[in-house]
Amino acid sequence: MQDLIDQLRRIVGDTNVFTHDDPEADLGAWEQDWRKRTRGRALAVVRPGSTRQVAEVVQACAAAGTSIVPQGGNTGLVVGSIPNDSGTQVVLSLQRMSAVRNVDPGNSTITVEAGCILQNLQDAAEKAGFLFPLSLGAEGSCTIGGNLATNAGGTQVVRYGNARELCLGVEVVTAQGEIWDGLSGLRKDNTGYDLRDLFIGSEGTLGIITAATVKLFPQPAAQLTAWAPVASLDDAVKLLVLAHQRLGAGLTGFEVMGQFALSLVDKHYPQLRVPMWKDAPWCVLLENSDSESEDHARSQFESLLEAALEQGLVSDAVVAENIAQAHNLWHVRESITLAQAEEGLNIKHDISIPVSRIPEFVRQTDAALAAAIPGVRFVNFGHLGDGNLHYNIQAPAEGDPKAFLREQEEHVNTIVYDAVQQFDGSISAEHGVGELKRHKLVKHKSPVALSMMRAIKTALDPQGLMNPGRVL
Amino acid sequence: MQDLIDQLRRIVGDTNVFTHDDPEADLGAWEQDWRKRTRGRALAVVRPGSTRQVAEVVQACAAAGTSIVPQGGNTGLVVGSIPNDSGTQVVLSLQRMSAVRNVDPGNSTITVEAGCILQNLQDAAEKAGFLFPLSLGAEGSCTIGGNLATNAGGTQVVRYGNARELCLGVEVVTAQGEIWDGLSGLRKDNTGYDLRDLFIGSEGTLGIITAATVKLFPQPAAQLTAWAPVASLDDAVKLLVLAHQRLGAGLTGFEVMGQFALSLVDKHYPQLRVPMWKDAPWCVLLENSDSESEDHARSQFESLLEAALEQGLVSDAVVAENIAQAHNLWHVRESITLAQAEEGLNIKHDISIPVSRIPEFVRQTDAALAAAIPGVRFVNFGHLGDGNLHYNIQAPAEGDPKAFLREQEEHVNTIVYDAVQQFDGSISAEHGVGELKRHKLVKHKSPVALSMMRAIKTALDPQGLMNPGRVL
Repeated sequence: MQDLIDQLRRIVGDTNVFTHDDPEADLGAWEQDWRKRTRGRALAVVRPGSTRQVAEVVQACAAAGTSIVPQGGNTGLVVGSIPNDSGTQVVLSLQRMSAVRNVDPGNSTITVEAGCILQNLQDAAEKAGFLFPLSLGAEGSCTIGGNLATNAGGTQVVRYGNARELCLGVEVVTAQGEIWDGLSGLRKDNTGYDLRDLFIGSEGTLGIITAATVKLFPQPAAQLTAWAPVASLDDAVKLLVLAHQRLGAGLTGFEVMGQFALSLVDKHYPQLRVPMWKDAPWCVLLENSDSESEDHARSQFESLLEAALEQGLVSDAVVAENIAQAHNLWHVRESITLAQAEEGLNIKHDISIPVSRIPEFVRQTDAALAAAIPGVRFVNFGHLGDGNLHYNIQAPAEGDPKAFLREQEEHVNTIVYDAVQQFDGSISAEHGVGELKRHKLVKHKSPVALSMMRAIKTALDPQGLMNPGRVL
Repeated sequence: MQDLIDQLRRIVGDTNVFTHDDPEADLGAWEQDWRKRTRGRALAVVRPGSTRQVAEVVQACAAAGTSIVPQGGNTGLVVGSIPNDSGTQVVLSLQRMSAVRNVDPGNSTITVEAGCILQNLQDAAEKAGFLFPLSLGAEGSCTIGGNLATNAGGTQVVRYGNARELCLGVEVVTAQGEIWDGLSGLRKDNTGYDLRDLFIGSEGTLGIITAATVKLFPQPAAQLTAWAPVASLDDAVKLLVLAHQRLGAGLTGFEVMGQFALSLVDKHYPQLRVPMWKDAPWCVLLENSDSESEDHARSQFESLLEAALEQGLVSDAVVAENIAQAHNLWHVRESITLAQAEEGLNIKHDISIPVSRIPEFVRQTDAALAAAIPGVRFVNFGHLGDGNLHYNIQAPAEGDPKAFLREQEEHVNTIVYDAVQQFDGSISAEHGVGELKRHKLVKHKSPVALSMMRAIKTALDPQGLMNPGRVL
């Protein structure tokens, strides 16, 4: 092992290899997962500064039979980017590879290295007069490489798609340490198998994404946010269909929030004004992005909401008067996760269901859980526009939450995931599989699909050294 | 072989197996390629009526070691869907599997079988009040299965993407004859490798797509078409950037046409009125789709064109006054291919280049060709909005076109494809590889990518029976 470490030091320089042999080194930032569920132990953390160095590190590890855990911002939620506890794995951090390589306004693309923090990428796009629409809670610390490796989602998927849809090309270091320059800025390229999309979402188990060319969009001239209580999820789905018809591609956000979820924000963050949450079992948040003007956006929005009122889909509605109000509405939505943590332990699910079937799914699954666990509480919210629910379960108000989690987590997961499968949904909509859900995958994914995935893994990583124990 | 044919007859019924043993059977429709460049000879043509039957046919062929050529509408342009001339291959036609299985308005999706003709799919979407935006010349006879297997492009890619971007899920029969039900109607699903996109664009070499769930979009309230002469491709690219800024997602078409290409339409179809083609070396055609109203679309378009006039990007412009005029403008654009055929033999290229680099690519490649072949003529047109040029070369006006083709085709291809590679482009933007371009791929595709493609092919089709000799 010392031979390998010496070799890694020669490749990336002494200051970019960290091991536990150095008593002053603290490897916690690379070994601890974001949700602080698990801490691994690395043989070494290596921080290459170029694609060439990444390739050499991979070659050295492959020769030594040492497995590699690629890591970006380490903000994943499914334990996919930290080493296991064996002390034998190399963490390959892309942190130092954070450059913006090229902005191409005429092609509406930007090429960045994998370690570029999402917010910096958004800023670089904005500086060039464009929008890069991928947006999620961790954007201040997650990296585009990690976003692509996990096919990140977020709040604007209803309009712009996931990370996958935003990417035109990737540069990859293969499991053999070869460099594939697939950094195409092309919107059409039918010369063989879609390797790009194979690496996107593969969570570092097939190779390492070192750079990417992604799409840029025109910045909207105006962006408005509205909030409305709805009597049922059925009405929320009808409102979504109407919003698609009326706003077309202007609809860039459509979130739904359950009453109990909003009550927790109201309770734990009284300084936030949660609008109309007492009026109905659900509220929706809509965002309209307009290429023309704020006046136009507002009249479009008002005409949509009037139609919704006439059709009885909403009982009331408010359109934010200014950016501060709009931010406040989004802030309420984004505070649900924290409010839920304040309330105590809970069981999270990141699921998706065909949008049209969500109302029935929620009715049926709520009923099954309420019957199985009296007093259970539902913190249900999510991106209704793309069918992604964060269907979370809070312990009953009475009793010991820790005991609830210990005794009921598996039971709750079984009920929820079985229902997801029955409704043709996905047990991981946007967070990925990692280590956390790989055992669930065996139960809920088609055996034919799993067998193809295993064949591909063996074909591209025959030694099994790329992030082993994740996904498969 | 007779054993296999008997078995195929048992699976799909006598009336759905055609062989050359039957003196009355004419297999031409399945054995002749669309451009009539090649005719193969099949062992048998088999037309299964269900996914189960497709699976059984594949199992029977796999057991017999007989290779399979999947076929949809057989409208491909690169010789990818006809048998070779060995008389040993089974053509598996999806023609009979043409059902619309399900329309889900609340989820904005439709699920159809692979043999559904594209136009029928468009019609089914329209009947349900939606738009399915994939649109191409062969839409009256090509099938959605073929569109997905070749990742078809067409005229609206600038807004809606290729077939890949329009597809949420596929049902596939694997090379082993297993059925993978990947017909997810989900917009977010991060549970493992992206098998869907691996089959899309694999041209039947990894398995057979038997059904798909695709996205539906709201129908635009109005669609307007404009036409403008531009002084250079540089100005055309600038106009494209401006159109993206002004129209946002309303920009659903942006075509460019060279003066010589338009002169051929004017010459061979004098009944078509080609506007302003004498005014400038290039004309562009723009389409604006509006979710609001025709008045709004028109005022948006006029404001864009005024800005373009002010900036000197266009010297004149016309917006179609009615649908007939709009159809005429598109008809001119779509008549270039036929006018070019009327003019005589030519060498076609379906290439893409990053949009910003197209002007320089055309300048440089035009010059190289003119120097190499005095008098050569350029029929250059394409989907500038997505970087896809049909960069075609017509024989010099004087001399023997057949001799030109015989003597110069390889030379011309070498000049063009070398330039494409130099400009980080693709030698097949939307037509695929098939048999026609697979030898070119070896020269112009990254060896690392090719080696990964071969590994995947071997992993999923170890017997090499799925459409052998295509792509790889």
